[in-house]
Parts: sequence; structure tokens; C-alpha cells
Amino acid sequence: MKVIVLSSVLKQKHRDQISGTASQVGADVCFVNSEKEIPEEFRDAEVLYGFGTETAKTSTHLKWLAVPSAGVDFLMKESAFANPNCILTNSSGAYGVTIAEHIMGVTLMMMRGLLEFGEETRAGKWSTPRQQRSIKDCRIMVLGTGDIGSAFAARAKAFEPEAIIGVCRSGKAPARLFNRVVKIDEIEKWLPRTDLLVMSLPDTPQTVNILSRKRINMLPQGAYVVNVGRGSAIDEDALADALEEGRLGGAALDVFRTEPLPENSRMWKTKNLLITPHVAGGLTLDYTLDKNVEMFCEDLRNYAEKRPLLHRVSRKKGY
Amino acid sequence: MKVIVLSSVLKQKHRDQISGTASQVGADVCFVNSEKEIPEEFRDAEVLYGFGTETAKTSTHLKWLAVPSAGVDFLMKESAFANPNCILTNSSGAYGVTIAEHIMGVTLMMMRGLLEFGEETRAGKWSTPRQQRSIKDCRIMVLGTGDIGSAFAARAKAFEPEAIIGVCRSGKAPARLFNRVVKIDEIEKWLPRTDLLVMSLPDTPQTVNILSRKRINMLPQGAYVVNVGRGSAIDEDALADALEEGRLGGAALDVFRTEPLPENSRMWKTKNLLITPHVAGGLTLDYTLDKNVEMFCEDLRNYAEKRPLLHRVSRKKGY
Repeated sequence: MKVIVLSSVLKQKHRDQISGTASQVGADVCFVNSEKEIPEEFRDAEVLYGFGTETAKTSTHLKWLAVPSAGVDFLMKESAFANPNCILTNSSGAYGVTIAEHIMGVTLMMMRGLLEFGEETRAGKWSTPRQQRSIKDCRIMVLGTGDIGSAFAARAKAFEPEAIIGVCRSGKAPARLFNRVVKIDEIEKWLPRTDLLVMSLPDTPQTVNILSRKRINMLPQGAYVVNVGRGSAIDEDALADALEEGRLGGAALDVFRTEPLPENSRMWKTKNLLITPHVAGGLTLDYTLDKNVEMFCEDLRNYAEKRPLLHRVSRKKGY
Repeated sequence: MKVIVLSSVLKQKHRDQISGTASQVGADVCFVNSEKEIPEEFRDAEVLYGFGTETAKTSTHLKWLAVPSAGVDFLMKESAFANPNCILTNSSGAYGVTIAEHIMGVTLMMMRGLLEFGEETRAGKWSTPRQQRSIKDCRIMVLGTGDIGSAFAARAKAFEPEAIIGVCRSGKAPARLFNRVVKIDEIEKWLPRTDLLVMSLPDTPQTVNILSRKRINMLPQGAYVVNVGRGSAIDEDALADALEEGRLGGAALDVFRTEPLPENSRMWKTKNLLITPHVAGGLTLDYTLDKNVEMFCEDLRNYAEKRPLLHRVSRKKGY
């Protein structure tokens, strides 16, 4: 079995770990930084770990594409795979820790005006105290209770919020982490009782515009919105209106409908909006990269021994 | 019994709560915004709730001064009280929540470069990902395990650090919150194994310069320092050197030897230093103010019924 590992961020220990697993299961591995570097003798590889979109589109030999991201929306078109039966796995499970820390960081920055204090002191100004908000006694809604939403809920719970409501397709999620888990069609009942709305949803037809103008207007005065899933989930224009009009306390967006955010987007200058350039996840945290490689090696063993893959996603549903 | 309540931030509900308690215990209350406003007939008041430093210094009638802060260092001089037997209470216990959220906010901002991302996007720049750090698997030392240190430890624990070591005078602190509690004289043993040092100490002769140049240099490469106690605890110049030389990952200081930070201080321009203008605590959070008033009312009842006061501090020790 031939395996291509396509990455420019792996460290030697990760290569060693993958090579070790491969040799245990009798696979040949080839490490490349880009798809152009794939040598002739690996063009018929059966497995590719990495963002091998070109290979997936052209190789009928590819039987398993393992992507290092949680989102797989960029692979949803039918033309994305030359082999209609190619298995797709993602790395959902590697990003909970890093994204949960991002959510907590931006939430506290907004509630406590920390970006403003940081900017002011950098400019040499010792400013006076301002009114602050707290996660204590806050009503939190976590929209999407997968790895990311759950990791955030576990952390937020320690801050003594009034309640954490989880919202997901099935209405099922770890009861230990949420005070209540509800189905997506109940969202409008709970929005008026939400002080902090955290969104960590995949990009699917069901999640597009899930936070519509109507729903943004159902949030109570001063509520906060954090989005780390996909930009398509929010009506950006309606959110910007609510922020400009002071109806929301603030929003922190790491994802947008178009990325990078276009130069002429009104979001750049929207009041009380904290923009981060899609950096909540990514492989910039050692723990995430270690976990990512570990998850691939685990499934490489499963694949070689013809067991079901743990991280398989539906190429139709997109998660 | 006459009681002066000196505050410009109390809301009507707080005044009602205090008036209600006072009438239950047969006390007369007078609310003022400043000490100059105290009417003639309350100049011999027995109790003052607020920063009544002028009254404490001049009135021999004052038997109990209740300050709304946790720190009481500004009252440690013998000349601070005209009545040598005046009881002093503080409001330690009201600030744990708000300061713990500050510590978590600035820690995540440093570890994830969130201030930089925020500044860059405000300037219209979509920057690329950078290496990040995490509280996950981090070794944390909490110097000062009182209300603030404990509230932070309770929250930090949910982020799955490798260990949280509590350091305090007695070597005793809630075992549930710390992996280990050690005495102050063991600090040098643990500093080399500390990735995040959180300082929440009162200003006493024992805490002055506790983080000396020698000890700063014992921290491992890339460690973070957060100080929310008193500025006197750190050798500021040595910390600035370590930050400028890139030996530390970053520092977040809310308190300084001189406040406001003097215009000519090198701290303003020190690399990787996040400065906040003494805003971690304060009465800017509703919860803190509510709790503060609640604590005073509780002790007003104790005082009237001649029971020991719960929030009494030693006028000698300073905590």
C-alpha cells in the first residue's frame, strides 16, 4: 500500500510516528510539501493524508483522503473526487482545545474591554475603569455541540454561568456539559434568553444563514455573538446593523462568507466587532498538530486491518 | 448607632439593601459621595463603609472602617487611624470572579496573540496564522491562594493544565483546586517548572520584590507572568529585561510600583508586555458590587449583635 503525506508543517517526530505506523502495517510512505512534488511511483497511491484536492480530483487510484481540517465543505462538489467511492476522513477532534481557548479569549476580551485597554496603554494612555460584563451568571447558547462546542462548554462551566444550552441536529449531546440540549428547531425559543451565543457549525445546506436577521433581532439587548464555524451561518449585514445600532454588546468573528475578508467589506469598520483572520483553529498549536497526526495513524492502522475508520465523514452530508 | 456610606457607584437597590439592614439593627445611615459631604450630625459616626481615609485619620469616634477593596496597604501607616482600636474590614471575597476572568482573558490574549490579531484587523490587515500556546498541558503556579488565586485555579483547571501549584504563607489551600500547595520558601524549587506564573498577593513587607531578578531568571524560556496583586511584588526592571531579551513569552501587568504608570517608565514600550490600567478588580462588574454590599450588610448585622466580623483584617499584617 502506498501512502502520500502532504504537509509543510510536520516535525521530525511526526514523520517518525507516521513512518513507524506505516512500516508496522506494511505501507510505503512518501512525504511531500506540495502535490507537485509527488514522485512518479506514488501517483497511484491509495491513501493521501493532507489537503490533496488536486490528487482527489484526478486520481482514480485514491481510495482514502484524510484531511487535517475539521471542515470538509471544499470537498463537497461531486467533481472533487475522480474515484466516486473514495473514503473521506477529517480531523474533527483535534481542534476542540485550541478553538475553545479562542472562544474564551475573545469572549473575555469583549466583556472586559481588553482590546481597548491594550490599545490605549500601547499608545501610552492610562485609562480609567469602564463597566464590564462577566461569564458568571451569563446564559450561554452553544450552537453545534460537537468536539468544539463541547470543549468550550466544559471550560465555560467553570466560570459559573447561569446555564449552558446546547443546540444540535439530534438534540443529543453530553448531558454532563450542558444544562439542556435542544434541537435546532427550538432555537427561536431560546435566543431571547441568550447572553452569549457561540457558533461552531459546519457549512452545510442546513446551517447556511441559520443566524438570520430575524433571529439576530431576537437576541436580548447587549448579547454577544462568537462564530468559529463557517461564515455562511450568519447574515453578516444584519449582524453589522445590530452592532452599529448598539443592540448587541459585541461580536467576535473568526470566519466570514468570503475569506480573506474583501477590502471593501463593511465588517472591517463595524463597531464592537472583533475580527480575527481565521486563526481559531489551524495547526499553529503543538497539541493540535500532535493530535491530528495521532488520529491519522490510528485510522491508518484501522484501514490496513480493514476495520471501520473512526474519523470518516459523509461525502454527502459534509460532517 | 450612626453609619456613613461613602460611595458614588451604588445603585438604588444597594442603598435600599443597606438601609433595610440598618433599620433592622437600629442604625441610622447617611449616604454621601465624598467625605466633604458628611453632615455635621454624622461627624461622630461609629461605622464608615467606603474609602473613608480622611475620617479614619481624624475621627476618634470611628470604631469600624469597612473598605470596599481587597487591598488595605494604603491604611497600614499608624497615622492612618485616629482611634488606635478602630476595626478594619476589607472586601476580599468580592473580587475573585472578576479578577479570575481578567487573568484568563489576558493569559489567552498572550498565548494566542489575540491583541496583535485585533490590532491588525482593525487596521484592515488580514494576517496569516502564527504559532500559538495553550493552557492545555501547561504548568501553572498561583502565587497567593486566597479568593482571587482560588477563583482562577477553579477556572484554569477546566482547561486541562498539566498541574496547578498553589503557593501561600501557610502551605494550606483548597486541595480540590490545586495539584499541590507549597509554602512560600519552596518557590525557587518550582519556578523552573512553571510555564504560567499568576501573582495575586497583597502588599506586605514579605511580598515586596518576591519576584526578584534572580527568580525571574529561574523561569523556563517562554514562560508567562500575570500580576493582579500589587506592583511592589515584582522587580519591574528585571522583568522588562527578560521580556526585551525574549526569555519570557510575555507578561500581563495590571498593577505597578507607581500608578498611574509614570510617563517616562520603560514599561510602556517593553516588548511582549500587556499593560492594563489597574482594572482587573474594581467595582465595574455588577456581580462584584452586589457581593461587596452583601458582605458589608452581613458584617453590619454581626457588628450590631456584637459577633466577630467575618471580613476583619489585621491592621498590622495588612490582610
